[in-house]
Amino acid sequence: MSTEVLIPRLAVIGVGLIGGSLARALKRAQVVGEVVGCGRNVEQLERAVALGVIDRYTDDPAAAVAGADMVVVGTPVSAMRAVFGAIRDHLAPHAVLTDVGSAKGCVVADAEAVFGTLPERFVPGHPVAGTEKSGVEASFAELFERRRVILTPHVESAAEAVDRVRAMWQATGAEVVEMGIRHHDEVLAATSHLPHVLAYTVVDTLASMDDRAEIFRFAAGGFRDFTRISSSDPAMWRDICLANRECLVEVIDEYIGTLTRLREALARGDERTVFETFRRAKHARDNFYRE
Amino acid sequence: MSTEVLIPRLAVIGVGLIGGSLARALKRAQVVGEVVGCGRNVEQLERAVALGVIDRYTDDPAAAVAGADMVVVGTPVSAMRAVFGAIRDHLAPHAVLTDVGSAKGCVVADAEAVFGTLPERFVPGHPVAGTEKSGVEASFAELFERRRVILTPHVESAAEAVDRVRAMWQATGAEVVEMGIRHHDEVLAATSHLPHVLAYTVVDTLASMDDRAEIFRFAAGGFRDFTRISSSDPAMWRDICLANRECLVEVIDEYIGTLTRLREALARGDERTVFETFRRAKHARDNFYRE
Repeated sequence: MSTEVLIPRLAVIGVGLIGGSLARALKRAQVVGEVVGCGRNVEQLERAVALGVIDRYTDDPAAAVAGADMVVVGTPVSAMRAVFGAIRDHLAPHAVLTDVGSAKGCVVADAEAVFGTLPERFVPGHPVAGTEKSGVEASFAELFERRRVILTPHVESAAEAVDRVRAMWQATGAEVVEMGIRHHDEVLAATSHLPHVLAYTVVDTLASMDDRAEIFRFAAGGFRDFTRISSSDPAMWRDICLANRECLVEVIDEYIGTLTRLREALARGDERTVFETFRRAKHARDNFYRE
Repeated sequence: MSTEVLIPRLAVIGVGLIGGSLARALKRAQVVGEVVGCGRNVEQLERAVALGVIDRYTDDPAAAVAGADMVVVGTPVSAMRAVFGAIRDHLAPHAVLTDVGSAKGCVVADAEAVFGTLPERFVPGHPVAGTEKSGVEASFAELFERRRVILTPHVESAAEAVDRVRAMWQATGAEVVEMGIRHHDEVLAATSHLPHVLAYTVVDTLASMDDRAEIFRFAAGGFRDFTRISSSDPAMWRDICLANRECLVEVIDEYIGTLTRLREALARGDERTVFETFRRAKHARDNFYRE
């Protein structure tokens, strides 16, 4: 290998779309030695070995982290507290611990509850990437290329541990940024958790209408794109939305306010307000995405 | 030509994405003789001639429809009443009149106001197809392939006129169905107008937040698809939403109800309701789209 091995032994707890894609990307970049997978579904883990995503597996988190230089918790956020509890007394002294949870306040609270104080070598993280698919079968090495990974180090995080997590994600082709924990949760509530809630609820509204078969039959092309994220794993998104519910409820309220104002404008035939709302939105999106 | 010329002379009033794509599709299918374009923007009409979409143009609707066998009004719905007024006394006795408006109640009301009684040879129609682009430059012959075109004949529509409009759309590769006028407007409010309103308002909500640059920067892949329809022409969608506002406001109210119930479930940590809402939605969408 011509490149440096950043992580002689990596433990991935939860080998799904994100954990699996991370392992693939690090292997492709030749910056990882051995990858140990851990999870509760042995079939999935065997599949991960067969796909070359991980080198070996165990269903015991304590055994998975023994001797690991980097431990990535890739489970749903609802399982993280249990994982922290299972690995707490088995982490190597030099091991860096990170996670990929889509909400960060709850993960940090879980870690604090389990470890007593937040470990110096714990660096919460969140790769802002994904598809509506889940599971190791859906993983691919390119998932993080040119995507953003947000690290939310806490006040006790060691700079050297942050550097190691940053270097790991940079090796996948991601752009790594740092952000405060609360700020992360507010931004993600708006850009990710709210859109999922809206997509799920619009499909659910239509599905509950009398002529549901016909309703979906006449959905045009835009509807397919608009609702794609509602095909995401409902258990995972229940967990994410509940984990970040404080920020999410706030932005839902803001959204209902905007929608109600537009509804009133439509009801009274207020062309200007309707147009201005649509125009501002198109302008903001077109400015951001040049497609 | 081996195929039958269904329409010796076609007049397209409003040569944009839909009107232009229709002309292209009929030319490709070799079922149209001459295509006369009409609009207010001469540059666009010249471009349409240069692209081979239309054969000639005029900016006078009365001149455009003279001698035409089929007249398709492809303007925004807000302009249809004026177009009907301009062509009323110039239609050939055998001419069939149709339109492509996304809301049908308002178009029928406009026609009734202009013609006094609804003409026998008027067949309201709506091709459920489009992209977020607009203008003749964005038109393409394949736009209607395997898409649905809804005809909403009124009680006075002549069966032979309906047949002619159906044959025209079938030649583009579309599947033609018939539906009641009010039913059309309810179904489209749910499947098309509501999603546009939601996409515009979610982008507008985010754009009004303090850290808007950062907000959009951290939007993940799903957000791009989810908000694509908010890049649609705001003036066109203002017109459509206002034209169908009665049905649209009803479905917005239903939607706000669903969203508010989910917001309450999130606020009280009700895992089951959140999961069931998401699960039902994923199930409904996956059932409909096999992708």
